[in-house]
Amino acid sequence: MAKTMAINAGSSSLKFQLIEMPEETVIAKGQIERIGLPDSIFTLKFNGEKFETIVNIADHEVGINYMLEQMKEHNVIADLHEITGVGHRVVAGGEFFNHSVIVDDEVLNKIDRLAAYAPLHNPANATGIRAFKKLLPDALSVAVFDTAFHQTMPEVNYLYPLPYQYYTRYGARKYGAHGTSHRYVAQRAAELMGKPLEELKLITLHLGAGASITAIKDGKSLDTSMGFTPLAGVMMSTRVGDVDPSLIYYIQEKENLSNEEMLDILNKKSGMLGISTLSPDMRDLLAVEDTNKHAKLAVEMWENRVLRYIGQYIVELGGVDAIVFTAGIGENSDPQREHIIEKLNFMGIKMDAEANKVRGEETELSTPDSTAKVFLIPTDEELMIARDVESLKNN
Amino acid sequence: MAKTMAINAGSSSLKFQLIEMPEETVIAKGQIERIGLPDSIFTLKFNGEKFETIVNIADHEVGINYMLEQMKEHNVIADLHEITGVGHRVVAGGEFFNHSVIVDDEVLNKIDRLAAYAPLHNPANATGIRAFKKLLPDALSVAVFDTAFHQTMPEVNYLYPLPYQYYTRYGARKYGAHGTSHRYVAQRAAELMGKPLEELKLITLHLGAGASITAIKDGKSLDTSMGFTPLAGVMMSTRVGDVDPSLIYYIQEKENLSNEEMLDILNKKSGMLGISTLSPDMRDLLAVEDTNKHAKLAVEMWENRVLRYIGQYIVELGGVDAIVFTAGIGENSDPQREHIIEKLNFMGIKMDAEANKVRGEETELSTPDSTAKVFLIPTDEELMIARDVESLKNN
Repeated sequence: MAKTMAINAGSSSLKFQLIEMPEETVIAKGQIERIGLPDSIFTLKFNGEKFETIVNIADHEVGINYMLEQMKEHNVIADLHEITGVGHRVVAGGEFFNHSVIVDDEVLNKIDRLAAYAPLHNPANATGIRAFKKLLPDALSVAVFDTAFHQTMPEVNYLYPLPYQYYTRYGARKYGAHGTSHRYVAQRAAELMGKPLEELKLITLHLGAGASITAIKDGKSLDTSMGFTPLAGVMMSTRVGDVDPSLIYYIQEKENLSNEEMLDILNKKSGMLGISTLSPDMRDLLAVEDTNKHAKLAVEMWENRVLRYIGQYIVELGGVDAIVFTAGIGENSDPQREHIIEKLNFMGIKMDAEANKVRGEETELSTPDSTAKVFLIPTDEELMIARDVESLKNN
Repeated sequence: MAKTMAINAGSSSLKFQLIEMPEETVIAKGQIERIGLPDSIFTLKFNGEKFETIVNIADHEVGINYMLEQMKEHNVIADLHEITGVGHRVVAGGEFFNHSVIVDDEVLNKIDRLAAYAPLHNPANATGIRAFKKLLPDALSVAVFDTAFHQTMPEVNYLYPLPYQYYTRYGARKYGAHGTSHRYVAQRAAELMGKPLEELKLITLHLGAGASITAIKDGKSLDTSMGFTPLAGVMMSTRVGDVDPSLIYYIQEKENLSNEEMLDILNKKSGMLGISTLSPDMRDLLAVEDTNKHAKLAVEMWENRVLRYIGQYIVELGGVDAIVFTAGIGENSDPQREHIIEKLNFMGIKMDAEANKVRGEETELSTPDSTAKVFLIPTDEELMIARDVESLKNN
């Protein structure tokens, strides 16, 4: 009975899942919010019940200790030794990591050094790793990188047409993100199709508040829409995605904004929120789009930006065998899936309108005669993390 | 015998063509370089001969006066009244102009106001217009805008996912460029196909040192790769095209660069020059690509960025009837045309390798069974300018 924890640590939060392996059964899950702030919130879901407590949690180590105690108290586990592995999501892996690794001092050191690429995330990820190593010293500690899956991109795709020395000096290139999610849904798609992943051309659409699109060929990431950071690519809830850089400087001058202030606007005030002037949440926009011109425009622009990347990747792949929708909007917003696939009708890709009336359930959405399969596959990054832990344990 | 001049005025240069209309015969052409600098160079080509003089030309008015005198001296014209119209290329037309117009004070005033969008070009264009109005007061003065053709883009395509108020306050949107060229080659493609332009889905590739790609539907620009400025879109000779904006800020911080300095690098030190570290000129790169890794990489990245836009536009158009190559690289670089079309073979678009062995000549490049036509059509912005003058004269 090996139990593996999948951990996603943020600067003031920590999400966890306890998974029985190799059965892949989720035993318990939950989160700690407001770490380091007054009235932290601890949530644990187990056996169909939800336990919530308000408690002061000073730092990640205190929080993890509290979580482990709570798991014992609620009989999720009898003994800490049942947890034989802990897998940690790490946002930036740079060019160091093209797959998940067992964490040693050198790995931790590299995660620290990569903080420049993900200043909000990597330090928090490292803090989570250190705390677990201290509290569960016998469990295998594994780092699973958001960027690792995309390390297979060819340099033609990952380089920007900037002076080359910026790449050698500063690692200025495309790294992408959501790699664990793209990898998971790609594997599931191949299973659903009954074909080896290595023989498929896939376009995976991870469409949540943050969104990225990946072209997968020979089982590998060929190209992806996020860039050096998760700001680039498609329009998102509050992120701008692709934009003419000289326009940004123009606005900065007009509004007298520093680079930092402008970057904040591009990350937090743009996207669907910026155009709708209403909400970053697709659901809010859909609720009023019939009467609100700005909401409608934001939704249409969002669909258009997704389509632009599908078009790019169909050409880069030289065709497509399956298109996969996942993450919040991808899993739950059937009109958007419909609008996107409708625009691909010209190449014989067709949606079964009835099948598409579904939310968050693994479903084949395309018609039998569609030239490419279309799937809804709920993403499961935690399971992928647990699988990576399991696989490194058996190495 | 109506003679029309097509004028392209830069800050220290002026190119001219004298065209017999409606016959569309080029009578003479030439240029003035180094206006306002010592040893200005005047060139006139006429009747198969080339006349060049080194002379001090203090400003545009002096230069135009000199040009007109030279035309009389070389018997290009007997009398200034033979020139009945002058059409001027103007770079930025903003949202004011969706077609060419007769220049009056209000038009000139708007061109001046739009200088913020094209600080290097619009003031020079306006200077040229004023000088000709003074020296040839009886000739019809017409402004032909690079952006006008793209004013048909729907807002879904021309808006950026930025806070909406930047659009209303500062005109922050996509304007595109090379409109006169895209319009010309689209019309020629329709003629070559013997079909009304209004019934065709076209992708026009203006691939020169500056490069832009346009999706044309119902005879109108549906989308185009250049943005608020000509910096955006595909990789160019020295311009970066699309790039993650947060990477730019990252580099600025590392290199301690001001916004102005960074913008200069994005415009003048990036693109093919930046990656190759060798030359901004495709010909130089092709000459050494077999032995120089960087040159080869720059060429491959350039081809990839063109393909990405073709993919986007095939999907936005819902198919494509013809793809048109034009401008310096598009007209002269057959290996690049071949590589690009090769990547579209999967959708049945096929190049006739023999037909493709051509430079700068109007040619159908596709095989008879290709699912879309592929053309090489040399662009002729001057002729398009003369046609617009003629058409406004007859209104």
